[in-house]
Amino acid sequence: MTQKSSKIDVDKVFEIHRGGKISTKVNYKVETDQDLALVYTPGVAKVCEAIARDPQMAKEYTIKSNTVAVFSDGSAVLGLGDIGPEAALPVMEGKAMLFKDLAGVNAFPICVRAKTVDEIVAIAKALEPTFAGFNLEDISAPRCFEIEQRLQNELHVPVIHDDQHGTAVVVLAGLYNSLKITKQKISEIKVVVSGSGAAGVATTKLLLKAGVEAKNIVVCDRNGAIYENRKNLNSIKIELAKITNQNHQKGSLLEVLTDSNVFIGLSGPNLLSKKDLEKMSKNAIIFGLSNPMPEFDPQDLPNNISVMATGRSDYPNQINNVLVFPGFFKGLFRAKITKVTDEMKLKAAMAISQMISNQDLTATNILPKALDRKVVDAVAKAVAGE
Amino acid sequence: MTQKSSKIDVDKVFEIHRGGKISTKVNYKVETDQDLALVYTPGVAKVCEAIARDPQMAKEYTIKSNTVAVFSDGSAVLGLGDIGPEAALPVMEGKAMLFKDLAGVNAFPICVRAKTVDEIVAIAKALEPTFAGFNLEDISAPRCFEIEQRLQNELHVPVIHDDQHGTAVVVLAGLYNSLKITKQKISEIKVVVSGSGAAGVATTKLLLKAGVEAKNIVVCDRNGAIYENRKNLNSIKIELAKITNQNHQKGSLLEVLTDSNVFIGLSGPNLLSKKDLEKMSKNAIIFGLSNPMPEFDPQDLPNNISVMATGRSDYPNQINNVLVFPGFFKGLFRAKITKVTDEMKLKAAMAISQMISNQDLTATNILPKALDRKVVDAVAKAVAGE
Repeated sequence: MTQKSSKIDVDKVFEIHRGGKISTKVNYKVETDQDLALVYTPGVAKVCEAIARDPQMAKEYTIKSNTVAVFSDGSAVLGLGDIGPEAALPVMEGKAMLFKDLAGVNAFPICVRAKTVDEIVAIAKALEPTFAGFNLEDISAPRCFEIEQRLQNELHVPVIHDDQHGTAVVVLAGLYNSLKITKQKISEIKVVVSGSGAAGVATTKLLLKAGVEAKNIVVCDRNGAIYENRKNLNSIKIELAKITNQNHQKGSLLEVLTDSNVFIGLSGPNLLSKKDLEKMSKNAIIFGLSNPMPEFDPQDLPNNISVMATGRSDYPNQINNVLVFPGFFKGLFRAKITKVTDEMKLKAAMAISQMISNQDLTATNILPKALDRKVVDAVAKAVAGE
Repeated sequence: MTQKSSKIDVDKVFEIHRGGKISTKVNYKVETDQDLALVYTPGVAKVCEAIARDPQMAKEYTIKSNTVAVFSDGSAVLGLGDIGPEAALPVMEGKAMLFKDLAGVNAFPICVRAKTVDEIVAIAKALEPTFAGFNLEDISAPRCFEIEQRLQNELHVPVIHDDQHGTAVVVLAGLYNSLKITKQKISEIKVVVSGSGAAGVATTKLLLKAGVEAKNIVVCDRNGAIYENRKNLNSIKIELAKITNQNHQKGSLLEVLTDSNVFIGLSGPNLLSKKDLEKMSKNAIIFGLSNPMPEFDPQDLPNNISVMATGRSDYPNQINNVLVFPGFFKGLFRAKITKVTDEMKLKAAMAISQMISNQDLTATNILPKALDRKVVDAVAKAVAGE
């Protein structure tokens, strides 16, 4: 594998960002007093009165029909950390662009200055009347889990923390196709997940739902395998310890990785050497999603590795949640779904994996391209149950 | 004066509103992986880092450069009252359309579910990182005064409650031109304002700034003239009593209206009969902004009335704050102004009045048309001090 150039033209980046990457646009041009009377006073009062009688009408006759809030507090932006809400705006605008461009879903960045879980929940709840759904983004763990859970319970519109579930869905899609190549069953593979942050937790839970056995999946943090009754576990890890690692494996990442079939890195760069990877089983599958440097060196892999994927566009098999969120919300809105279920995520993962036909499937082609517009409709159909 | 038809095609109103009246739009089409690398990861991180170092950069490289929140709690929508945030959405979308269509200013409706002043202030403050300014709208009095004041003090972006200041500016613009017709000086006229809500208070204060003498302006509420030490005045009216009606006139609206030169109705329909209006001075100026029915019958006026204006588009001289808000925010954003001053409002009113040349000025042509796009630039220049 040779690394293609991924030099970024920084001047061009700033040039594109000048003035913002999205705009608002009117759906009906206001040219005459008669137009004004239809879109504004006095005509608009008819629509206001209809919604006042039945608030559900807002989903028909306002932006609430098809607009997602890309919502962040800027506390865990990309790999940059807690850089604050202003500095998070370019990322949220970028997601808003992709929502619109790929799926025709209106999306607006909402970057908020708020610290506590209670504050963030209160703001999102206050904004519920305006939006058809919330895409939570770049909110630090473990706050993100409680925030998502509370909003899912307390709002009447769908809520997804994309760093969790977008990643989990694409990883599962990639795994489905990798297992076709290595001719393994999901119920038989031994999986090691490195990282117990937002993506690590959600991916682990989705893999369990998809059929990975609880005894066959071990999550590692900086201190190695997470197991029941390990000291100083936070509540998230206590839950992980309960639902994974039923054989109570202890030890370092390297120790539990030995003889495993699948490694999923959702942690940090350069954790595993070529020699470390050699300890995995034959036909091993490794996904290194730390960005820009994966958990392993993609250019120096041992022979027992059958399938390799990263978060980067300059290697084959990019794990990019752009494959998920536009179509996922498109499907939710189209089917007027208010609660996201695991079933929808499993179906979306299957739909993405099926975008690669059996003829086209190779170890370097397990996933569709990030901007493949056909993926959006497939995911939307899967989520909407069509 | 004959009333033109103003029948609204209700089916067409709903047809136009279906799916919402605004959309988001991408400023740069994402077609290749290289595009994705520029607008999203990894390129976007360069912009995030720049803003993290200097949050002011958000005003250059994000939507924060040119996007206003049209912010409401839905507590005083049009004449419909407290119909709630969902039902307020069509009005805020309508304003967002006019911002974009007339002034090229991006605007997004933010309708919030919140009751107390503290809650509303907290939400707007939390949203400050995303927006270049806040247009407060349809928030009930007297909460609107405290909310605006607190946000003006606590935010670093401009805040305007349009129901107050938009109305005040157009009324003043109309008054400037009316006085040219009646050949009166603003320092000499005797003014009666009916209504001590958002628009009544702001208009009264702006007229004082414009040169109406404090002894020559009386504000009336349902109980008649507001004067110092009247019983049961709320804090807003106590303040009004201090700055107006220095002659301490008491009595009903009709009593204080007698011999006055200017009536400004910002209250409710059908307050004044033809006989009542006859008690005003000769060459009287009357603005009746109650909608859809003005404070007087525009079709049955006595001969002492020289100039009549209403809020309706089917009579001459429509007082419509569409003449103000698009250009006002355009000017604020262009000049990077963070605090709105009375000076800007006075200049905006003068700029609007000057859109009618002396040749064109007649008793039935005191203001430009609501959708006259030249007004936007004139107001923007006035506000920006160009």
